[in-house]
Amino acid sequence: MAKLTSREQDYSKWYNELVVQADLAQHSDVKGCMVIKPYGFAIWERMREVLDGMFKATGHQNAYFPLFIPKSYMSREAAHVEGFAKECAVVTHYRLMNDPETGEIIVDPEAKLEEELIVRPTSETIIWNTYKGWIQSYRDLPILVNQWANVVRWEMRTRLFLRTAEFLWQEGHTAHATRNEAIEEATQMLDVYADFAEKWMAMPVVKGVKSEAERFAGAEDTYCIEALMQDGKALQAGTSHFLGQNFARAFDVQFQTKEGGLEYVWATSWGVSTRLMGALIMTHSDDKGLVLPPKLAPIHVVFVPIYKTDDQRAAVCEKGAELCDALIGQGYEAKLDDDDTKRSGWKFAEYELKGVPVRVAMGPRDLENGTVEIARRDTGEKELVPLEEAKDYIVKMLELIQEELYTKALNHRVAHTTRVDTWEEFKEVLEGKGGFIEAHWDGTSETEEKIKDATKATIRCIPLDQKEEEGRCIFSGNPSRGRVLFAKAY
Amino acid sequence: MAKLTSREQDYSKWYNELVVQADLAQHSDVKGCMVIKPYGFAIWERMREVLDGMFKATGHQNAYFPLFIPKSYMSREAAHVEGFAKECAVVTHYRLMNDPETGEIIVDPEAKLEEELIVRPTSETIIWNTYKGWIQSYRDLPILVNQWANVVRWEMRTRLFLRTAEFLWQEGHTAHATRNEAIEEATQMLDVYADFAEKWMAMPVVKGVKSEAERFAGAEDTYCIEALMQDGKALQAGTSHFLGQNFARAFDVQFQTKEGGLEYVWATSWGVSTRLMGALIMTHSDDKGLVLPPKLAPIHVVFVPIYKTDDQRAAVCEKGAELCDALIGQGYEAKLDDDDTKRSGWKFAEYELKGVPVRVAMGPRDLENGTVEIARRDTGEKELVPLEEAKDYIVKMLELIQEELYTKALNHRVAHTTRVDTWEEFKEVLEGKGGFIEAHWDGTSETEEKIKDATKATIRCIPLDQKEEEGRCIFSGNPSRGRVLFAKAY
Repeated sequence: MAKLTSREQDYSKWYNELVVQADLAQHSDVKGCMVIKPYGFAIWERMREVLDGMFKATGHQNAYFPLFIPKSYMSREAAHVEGFAKECAVVTHYRLMNDPETGEIIVDPEAKLEEELIVRPTSETIIWNTYKGWIQSYRDLPILVNQWANVVRWEMRTRLFLRTAEFLWQEGHTAHATRNEAIEEATQMLDVYADFAEKWMAMPVVKGVKSEAERFAGAEDTYCIEALMQDGKALQAGTSHFLGQNFARAFDVQFQTKEGGLEYVWATSWGVSTRLMGALIMTHSDDKGLVLPPKLAPIHVVFVPIYKTDDQRAAVCEKGAELCDALIGQGYEAKLDDDDTKRSGWKFAEYELKGVPVRVAMGPRDLENGTVEIARRDTGEKELVPLEEAKDYIVKMLELIQEELYTKALNHRVAHTTRVDTWEEFKEVLEGKGGFIEAHWDGTSETEEKIKDATKATIRCIPLDQKEEEGRCIFSGNPSRGRVLFAKAY
Repeated sequence: MAKLTSREQDYSKWYNELVVQADLAQHSDVKGCMVIKPYGFAIWERMREVLDGMFKATGHQNAYFPLFIPKSYMSREAAHVEGFAKECAVVTHYRLMNDPETGEIIVDPEAKLEEELIVRPTSETIIWNTYKGWIQSYRDLPILVNQWANVVRWEMRTRLFLRTAEFLWQEGHTAHATRNEAIEEATQMLDVYADFAEKWMAMPVVKGVKSEAERFAGAEDTYCIEALMQDGKALQAGTSHFLGQNFARAFDVQFQTKEGGLEYVWATSWGVSTRLMGALIMTHSDDKGLVLPPKLAPIHVVFVPIYKTDDQRAAVCEKGAELCDALIGQGYEAKLDDDDTKRSGWKFAEYELKGVPVRVAMGPRDLENGTVEIARRDTGEKELVPLEEAKDYIVKMLELIQEELYTKALNHRVAHTTRVDTWEEFKEVLEGKGGFIEAHWDGTSETEEKIKDATKATIRCIPLDQKEEEGRCIFSGNPSRGRVLFAKAY
């Protein structure tokens, strides 16, 4: 196993190496498309399961809509087509044939589609075209539907999980009778995402709303959760859009109101993707490899037996199996690694790389003393614990790790959130310690763009808990009534 | 609600209407692609969950591979390209643009891919291209991976769930060190599929192996489970392929053996799809709508209150809520339908259409007598039961329904399986009662094709439990050593 590049040395290289070495994902030979390997997929599966439960608990149902979107649908909503129709995979033919001359497989020129199909980059258009048939009256509302799917956005520069041409995600698409109900839905789902990020991923997030320039193409408002990575760059971890009546107008979806009138339907959409895997990795991991919050770890505890003789091996493994069974009985994934072909030192490094939260080791002396050595992946701390107390000790430790990972990440964010009042200070902090910058902004897209051009920093969000405060825009000096959050971002 | 066409009148029309009216799925505006509606998706989700558990229990892990396959990959395995590369969605471009003249959105001619990409019709090629990097030595084997994904096979004539251009499925792809281990894996997964079909779908199946002509393109042997629908046509419900070393050769995947030699890896692949939804519907449903085996029903029990006054409504609904809570406490989905805007007669018809296995009704007289009326969806039988016994009664009834649906379907299959010895008899049975026909066949693809051309019947499988029996081929009169299963099929 090659040693990882350290974060200090090259954060970006560290990330790329970690994803591959910890068996999470790899680039495929298809440009921009990744292979999610079983260990990485097990983490994503766990995320999906938890999120799916949260969606269902808030009244949503799953459905499935077509992978392909007719080209003309994309043009129906003016802002949407600008945002999404440009870089996408276009299906133009539906048949291959043998070249009559060379015998090679070629595209059959006769099998050209009348209208090209786009591989969905997001499904608002195809779904609202379908909702048109589902909605006649206020009795048909609300519609609360979610879809787990793959989507494709052609990307030239890709990074595993963070930016890939094909990725996996969920997209909720809801339809409502009133503006307020739709806004409540959009903010409710933002709360769901924030809860998931904080309680499951142990990743603190700022809830906010995007500036006009950063809004989803076709939305009236884009709510978002923003997290801060260890290198001081921000990562947008989830978005929830209030779409107004834009898609209902574009696809002519009207409903009869209780009072007998006819109105356009109000919409939301909201999504998180395999990008969360990138966020999870970058929030907690270290130079030894992955660090996982116990609530999302595919394996919580690994037991590594240490022995010289076969008798020792049998005796230690017996104790290990008992401990693992006891943990499994309480709903934890515990693994006894009794593979005789690998040394225990190799195993220690391997499970550190893979981010297993708790490692238990037991050798011949432990056997005599009735103890085990319990090591925490996140802090590296080790402790000798009586075997009969090990199970309860580990269960408590897993809870503690979950909490402390969150606290550590929160402390990092607090330490890397800086309030600045001048343009010089802004640039200095951005180039120096990085992180979130709380600064006044005059509210115009023009200023926002100039700041971005000058520094690569973008407005991550206008925090939902923004305090009213008189001030002057750090760039233009024009008046402002509250601070927004700037950062360089993934 | 329009009344369903009866099965007797037009089986095919009955099926199409049922799928749409029961809110399972609908055609989308994208040719050949379906929308799976929330109620239909809930059944598929349940199937997926159970199957996924069975795959994991047999040691498999999930992963995810790219949607796109480079055109050249498809040509690597000669039989495979013939079977799959012809009717498929071909991505040729990666960008749209505004037509400088008309302003319309068109495909950007500059953004042509160097090599066209095929939307996966199945993933053997892209997966074996990946496995090449995963496998060096016997220590890397076996690889036991499954993927849940969407696939696309261009189809001209489509039917919801049974044949659609895009469908959802799982595809297992395993790699082994020996021929025998791969064959054991392929037959093990066939057993998993058969278990699922019989114990969960309540659908009896025949396990068999395909004739050469019906084999998967690229397989050495295709194992299958075949079910019989109510109209006497067969449906292939799942396949498991022993792929030999074909894909390992095509993608040059060799491994170092324990003895130090170099050998090609042995492979299997196996899959079931949303086609199972069609099989489920056609096995049990009737002229009133869907009939669902309780183990796969999204709602097990519906409670319909009957009342005239508000007081009656409140009192009956209170009892209903108690009963539903008790059932939910035991792990069942029970729904109290207290919607005041719909009549109970409408509700009865609606839940019959949707296939809810058990309906409980309670009116003012029941309230006085402390009884409820319990109705079975499959048989239509109703019974007055004391309220305090209702929960246990329903739990037993759900078990009984599951068993009896299986028995009924099995009896239907037995009654529609005919042993014939002459060509005249063969044609007569096929045109008359239909169903499975057990007949001798000379083992040649030539004869098989002639029978198909003459009658549209195909060899569904050579049953795994085929008995050795001397006989003469019903078509050619040549000697045969056992009967195979013929039928017209979906």
